[in-house]
Order: sequence, then structure tokens, then C-alpha cells
Amino acid sequence: MIRIGLDIGGTGIQIGAVDENNKIIAQDSIPTRTDISFEEQVDRMVECIRRILNPSVHPELTLEHVVSIGAGIPGIADDNGTVIDCTNLGWKYTPLRQEFQKRIDKPFFVDNDANVAALAESVAGKSAGTSSSVFITLGTGIGAGIILNGKIWKGFHGVGGEFGHTILEVDGVPCSCGNRGCVEQYCSATAIIRMAREAVAVHPDSLILEMAQGDPARINAKIVIDAAREADPIAEKVFRRYITYLSLSVANLVNFMDPEIILLGGGVSKAGSILSDAVNLEYPKYVLFNTLPLPKVEIAALSSEAGIIGAAMLS
Amino acid sequence: MIRIGLDIGGTGIQIGAVDENNKIIAQDSIPTRTDISFEEQVDRMVECIRRILNPSVHPELTLEHVVSIGAGIPGIADDNGTVIDCTNLGWKYTPLRQEFQKRIDKPFFVDNDANVAALAESVAGKSAGTSSSVFITLGTGIGAGIILNGKIWKGFHGVGGEFGHTILEVDGVPCSCGNRGCVEQYCSATAIIRMAREAVAVHPDSLILEMAQGDPARINAKIVIDAAREADPIAEKVFRRYITYLSLSVANLVNFMDPEIILLGGGVSKAGSILSDAVNLEYPKYVLFNTLPLPKVEIAALSSEAGIIGAAMLS
Repeated sequence: MIRIGLDIGGTGIQIGAVDENNKIIAQDSIPTRTDISFEEQVDRMVECIRRILNPSVHPELTLEHVVSIGAGIPGIADDNGTVIDCTNLGWKYTPLRQEFQKRIDKPFFVDNDANVAALAESVAGKSAGTSSSVFITLGTGIGAGIILNGKIWKGFHGVGGEFGHTILEVDGVPCSCGNRGCVEQYCSATAIIRMAREAVAVHPDSLILEMAQGDPARINAKIVIDAAREADPIAEKVFRRYITYLSLSVANLVNFMDPEIILLGGGVSKAGSILSDAVNLEYPKYVLFNTLPLPKVEIAALSSEAGIIGAAMLS
Repeated sequence: MIRIGLDIGGTGIQIGAVDENNKIIAQDSIPTRTDISFEEQVDRMVECIRRILNPSVHPELTLEHVVSIGAGIPGIADDNGTVIDCTNLGWKYTPLRQEFQKRIDKPFFVDNDANVAALAESVAGKSAGTSSSVFITLGTGIGAGIILNGKIWKGFHGVGGEFGHTILEVDGVPCSCGNRGCVEQYCSATAIIRMAREAVAVHPDSLILEMAQGDPARINAKIVIDAAREADPIAEKVFRRYITYLSLSVANLVNFMDPEIILLGGGVSKAGSILSDAVNLEYPKYVLFNTLPLPKVEIAALSSEAGIIGAAMLS
């Protein structure tokens, strides 16, 4: 018995077959293309699935053994398997389940990629064994997946989990969503880069700029955090500011929902314990009942595999 | 079969016997006193319960018919019935269940008053029949109760539901909790009064000041909203600003959790549809996926009875 998981990203689509122990036993990938029709995109995904279904690699790698197919997308979908909105792929009210099932007649599920990663962690990762968790991806943008009683919570109308677009600062930094002051503008990798560019414009002697070969356009989150590790004062200041914003955001989540555990994933989370330690130290300051036990913030465990494993777990 | 509900407030304690149809069949109240010991406070509550248990009024009003006793408090309690913190009554790690059961040996439950009101509404009020709801009390402070799958959600560590202390504005208005920019400082009755006082200091010709008999100290939320209804431009401006803050806060809740319905209770909610209509019109602007159906914001139905009914429903 195997399940197929598709991790549909902006640049590539990772496809894997996952066994009953939540291990990937076969995997392949195709580039994401937006220059072809939706039907052709689905054709190419199905071709890739058929390619990895190779019983000479593993006896269970046959279509007969596939119990379900799941896809994680950088967007939102409804319970009918229709993608409501997925900007990167140009999908809007796109019947992904319907198109898939025309080609492979198996149960098909689709959900937001942060929800999928949260589910994977809650079954096979850092939040395994917990009853409630929130997974926050700190990437170019901010995503969040909420797990309650072992299940993805995406809200009654399917619009929940958009933690990145909750407002942290009235009339704050303009956001791509059209509003101002969204968490995404303070806690994403993009936000660190923006803060660092502002800082090096005033302090060109910062190690940040040296590590970026003198070119502010080359600054990324890793450079800023690495420079902070090297005790560059400007990088430390940018990192401290980022930690304060992330701590305020985490505190909002705890004051409101108080999950058992909070996981950080996405590019910025590669910084590891320097990030989670700093947030665990600061965020309780902003929680009302902070003399009681509080959720721990931890770095997610599964990294890039979470997308395939979590998608395969969808049901 | 009856259940006893205690609505323990800062100034008075409302106590009622609730029948199987969630109707209050007997009711009395005692003033809240902080000049007596905790044990005496419990004695007085128990005396009041014994007083309303009068079978000549209703045959079920006997101790034998009482299946459980519940209390709503302006604070937080743990699952053992211990009040962790209830500032108004001076309770801190106070064993309320234990003291009650020494006097009446029945199952005893205690929970936060906003949670209790949310539960009451979800069974016998505006959110009856929904699977998820958030009840927000707009009073001197801000409370919130979250109902998920018919049950109170107070978080894994019991610190959730503190929506009033989520931060809406980094480095914003100082809050009594020690932080800055909490929702409570923008969406409570206290916030409207503060904004109105600031406005009349510059515009003493406002109807607000006239309705407050020229004394800024007499301004309350009702006066401001009544003056806005009369089209006083200063009152309208204060009210618009309040609606924007409340809409941003509601949008944060929807972007993150997306419950089926959102209820407004507490003093400010007495304004009725002028309040809920304005929020329903404005808050979707701040929601990411606002072309999809969204939760409706409605005024709670049960008003002052919710405290007794909800407390009696605790289990």
C-alpha cells in the first residue's frame, strides 16, 4: 500500500511514493511550467507518477498499490479538490481533482503547502504525538498550518491559516496583499533582507555587505544571520529586530490559540537554534499568562521531504 | 435535573438554577466582596445556592436534582478547578472546586467568563448549531471565548483566548498587562472613551461633551455611539476609527482561524446593528481570501443571562 505525494512549488514539482511507515520509497521531479495549459501541466505530473511507479525498484510501486494521491500547493483549495487560488501556477478555480481523476482514478486530495507540511510534522516530524500544533514557514512569504486533534484546521470557510497576513502594525509596511503591516512584512526572509539593506545603506562597513560581495542585491537571510553569528554589530541589530517581530507574532498566536507546540520551517529556519532559542527567550514577555507553561518553539524536522510526505498523508 | 451556574463578576455574583432546556428557573445574586476571606466568599455563594433551591417554587429545586455546579470567573482556572488568577477577587492559585465540594459534594467546574458566555451562545444563543465560533466581549477590557467542535478551546496550556492581549500595533498604546499595542487598547469600551476624550479636548463643541453634561469624565461608550447616531461629526470620526480597529482585529482572527461565526458581546455590543453592520462591511478588506464566503459578525443573543447559563453548562 503506497500513497503518492506531490509538492507543487513555484519552480519545481517534487513527486514521491510514500510507504506505510511514511518513508519516501521513490521520488522524481519536474520543473513547474506556466507556459503550458493546465491540462498539459496535469499530463506531465501524471507521466511523472507513472515513471516512479516502477515495480522493479520496489514491488509495491504499481498503480494497484496506490491508495490515494495528494498535492500540496502554494495557494488554497476547497474540499472538492478545486484550487481556488494559486498565483504562482496561474490557477484560479481550477478543478485539479477532476483533471487528475480523469487520468488516474484514485482518491485525490489537495491542500495548502503549509498545511501539508504541518500535517507531515505532526505525524512523522517534530510535532509527532502532539494534539495541537502550528507550523510557520519563514520563507519569501509566511505560511502557516494549524493542526487540531491530529487534523488540519483550515477554518470553516477554508480561509484560515493565513497567519502571514494577520496585521502586526496598523498602517505598517505595505504588503503585496494590498494591506499594510502584515506579519509577512516583518517575519519573512524578505523582511530580513529589507531590514538589512536599509541598515547597510547607513552602515556600509557592515560585514553583511562584505559577505554580499559589496552588492546589496546579493544580501539574503543566511548572510545576515551568519554575519550576526560573527558578532557584526549591524547584523546583530537587524537580527534582534527580526527576533522581536517574530516573538510578537508568536505571542499573538499563543495568546489567542495556545497550541501544544509551534514549529518554524522555511528558509530562515535553517538558522537553527540561534533562531528558536532567541524566540523562546523573548516571546513569553508578550504573553498575558506567562508564568504558566507555554508552547515551545522548535525548528521543524522534515525539511524538504515534508512536502511530499504531508501531501501523501492528505485524506 | 438541574444545573447551578455562578456568574462571578467584579461587583456582583449572579447565581441561577438552569433546567434541561437551558432556561433559568430560579435566580438570586450577592455582592462581590473582597474584604472577607476566600472561605467566607465560598460560604456566601453556597448560602445563596441553598436559598434558591426552594422546591415550593419548582419541584426540581432540591439539592438531589442538582447534577453539577459551574462558575464563570473574570480570570483563568485549570482543569482541577483551581483559579490560577482572578485579579478582581484577589484569587491566585485558589482551590475553588475543593472549597465548594467541601460544602456541596457535586461535580464542580470553573472557567473564564468569556469562555462561559461563548459556550452559552453556542448552545442556546446566536451561535447555536455552529461547529466553531469566537465570542468577543467588548467591555472595560476585551475577553474572548473560542468554541471548536462544540467545546471550549482554551489552549493546550490553558492560556489561549486572550485575544484582547494580542498585539495590533507594535509599540502602540501602553496596556495594563505591561505590553504595548494590545487589541484591548483599541477595541474596548475604555478605548472608545479614551479616543472620545482626546477628540473633545480639541473639539469641545462636540455633541459628545454636551451629552456628557460638559464633563469628559462622564463620557461612556453609549454616549459616543448615540452622538454618532445623531450624526455629530466628531462622534462619527471616533466611531469610524473604533470600527477600523475592531475590523482589523476581527480580520486577524479570520485570517488565522476562520471560525464559522463571530459574536460580539459586552457593553459596546449594546449598540447593536450599527456596530455589527459596520464591522461586517469593513473587516473583509483586511482578509486575504476575501472573495470567498467569510464568517458573519453578529451581536450575541443572551446578554446577562449568558453568564449563568454558560456556567451551568460547564462539564
